Amino acid sequence: MSEKIYVGVDIGGTTIKVGICNEEGVLVQTYEGPTDTDKGTEAILNNIATYARLIVTESTYDWEQVEGVGVGIAGFLDIPNGIIKHSVNLGLRNVNLPEYLEPRLGKTVRINNDANVAALGEAWAGAGKGVPNCVCYTLGTGVGGGIIINGRIIEGSSGMAGELGHIQIVPDLEAIQCGCGKMGCLETVSSATGIIRMAKDAVARGDRTSLAMVDHIMAKDVFDAAKAGDEVAIRIVSRAAYYLGKSMSVVAVILNPQRFIVGGGVAKAGEFLFEQIREVFAKLTPEVAQEGVEIVPAVLGNNAGVVGAAGLLLR
Amino acid sequence: MSEKIYVGVDIGGTTIKVGICNEEGVLVQTYEGPTDTDKGTEAILNNIATYARLIVTESTYDWEQVEGVGVGIAGFLDIPNGIIKHSVNLGLRNVNLPEYLEPRLGKTVRINNDANVAALGEAWAGAGKGVPNCVCYTLGTGVGGGIIINGRIIEGSSGMAGELGHIQIVPDLEAIQCGCGKMGCLETVSSATGIIRMAKDAVARGDRTSLAMVDHIMAKDVFDAAKAGDEVAIRIVSRAAYYLGKSMSVVAVILNPQRFIVGGGVAKAGEFLFEQIREVFAKLTPEVAQEGVEIVPAVLGNNAGVVGAAGLLLR
Repeated sequence: MSEKIYVGVDIGGTTIKVGICNEEGVLVQTYEGPTDTDKGTEAILNNIATYARLIVTESTYDWEQVEGVGVGIAGFLDIPNGIIKHSVNLGLRNVNLPEYLEPRLGKTVRINNDANVAALGEAWAGAGKGVPNCVCYTLGTGVGGGIIINGRIIEGSSGMAGELGHIQIVPDLEAIQCGCGKMGCLETVSSATGIIRMAKDAVARGDRTSLAMVDHIMAKDVFDAAKAGDEVAIRIVSRAAYYLGKSMSVVAVILNPQRFIVGGGVAKAGEFLFEQIREVFAKLTPEVAQEGVEIVPAVLGNNAGVVGAAGLLLR
Repeated sequence: MSEKIYVGVDIGGTTIKVGICNEEGVLVQTYEGPTDTDKGTEAILNNIATYARLIVTESTYDWEQVEGVGVGIAGFLDIPNGIIKHSVNLGLRNVNLPEYLEPRLGKTVRINNDANVAALGEAWAGAGKGVPNCVCYTLGTGVGGGIIINGRIIEGSSGMAGELGHIQIVPDLEAIQCGCGKMGCLETVSSATGIIRMAKDAVARGDRTSLAMVDHIMAKDVFDAAKAGDEVAIRIVSRAAYYLGKSMSVVAVILNPQRFIVGGGVAKAGEFLFEQIREVFAKLTPEVAQEGVEIVPAVLGNNAGVVGAAGLLLR
């Protein structure tokens, strides 16, 4: 029998990215087209179906080889039933994706949220390849997370598992309120937003730092300043790293994963950040729960979503 | 075909408890015999085999109906291979239990640690019956834990998952060192040992409390005093409850289980304790992660271990 292929779809606010993965999770072809968010639900769904067909037509594979189509999307989802309950940035409400797509494509359609599919992508064919138990962090505007146990995404009883950015890890005395309404969530300090906020606070209160001369501070500016020896920037990065490492220490005694995979824009700071996270993790975690545990950068970059979406069809 | 039965074995330092469960996890028969820890490895293993045979012989079932034998034991285990690497209280080292028992019993033998099997017992046939995702706390000398996802124990990459007592939840300023060597673990405040320590500290520093008149303070004394209105005891119980609820809030965003099940001696304090835990959980957890989540007492008591051990044979 000919090789099976898996189609992954990563729906963003402006573009829909589609990819074909082979049985090893290798992304052999990609295609991107506009989401057409402004044209409404029908247009978006039609684009998904069109692009999924198109990428296979333009490839060397036949449609018969397609095992199914997986879709990653940000929003509140009813994962088992494939329903997008609410996707704020796409303006979708109560859309049953398999119901729409399966008759049009003649293939199984599965959905999951963006952070979970990115984690599955890394676990299947990225930094976690061959490792059954991985926990993934995505450090961007917020802190996203995904948990893979025995090669499968842990969704939780209402799809809320893996919300690592909302681990309340900052002690009350220094906690600020998170977008979720609660105090001291990890993402208040370890996301790009958190790092930028700490930098702006430091500048506003007159701390002596080279960041005072930066017009629109980005997380990268803070890392660059820290690498150049700026004491204030160093303190901000240590704080972001400290709570990441501490949260991993908590996850380690709960789930005992073999590997933590860290991706997203902030992770581009590289070894400078990773060394600090590893140091904190080593210091805080009981020995038996840190044996053989690695903290490594994600490797698939922006492709993690499309690879993981394709991976939703694996059983 | 006749009904399958599952034999569970719960090995303690002084007695070995054996039970037969039916396909619904109902414990239909139990037997207890001495462990004979002082007689060494061979005697202990022989007792397990003897009691497992005996309980079935004395029942209305035939040996042919036995699906397998599950064993719960405290210690460091290599679960996939069934090896007891080190059980301190039994004096066992590097014992391969299936290798010894399977030829003697002619049945599949599986092992897992005591906290995990207790969790599986409650999930299968106790307070978590019918609920696929449960997290169990056992509040005793320490704080044990077990995580059940889709009806299966989460073991982690080296068997260290579910060590909920070692979630570092107490902030540095008020943290004390745990037996594991790290600071601020949940079990330093929410175990019987932690509660007794806080009570003794209060008495030692001259706090006005009725506990000053108790000779050997037990956790129950602290709960009784708190229920009677003793301010110091109330503060100690609130603290134990606070960190339990806070740890559940952390677990909720990581795993999003449907039910938290709390057992062990300390849980006997009942609704007085549970109400406080639920209040903290409700206050600290993001709304989306607490919808439909329940915090309930364990119901199987000391039988959880033997039921869960039997449940290891379920697939």
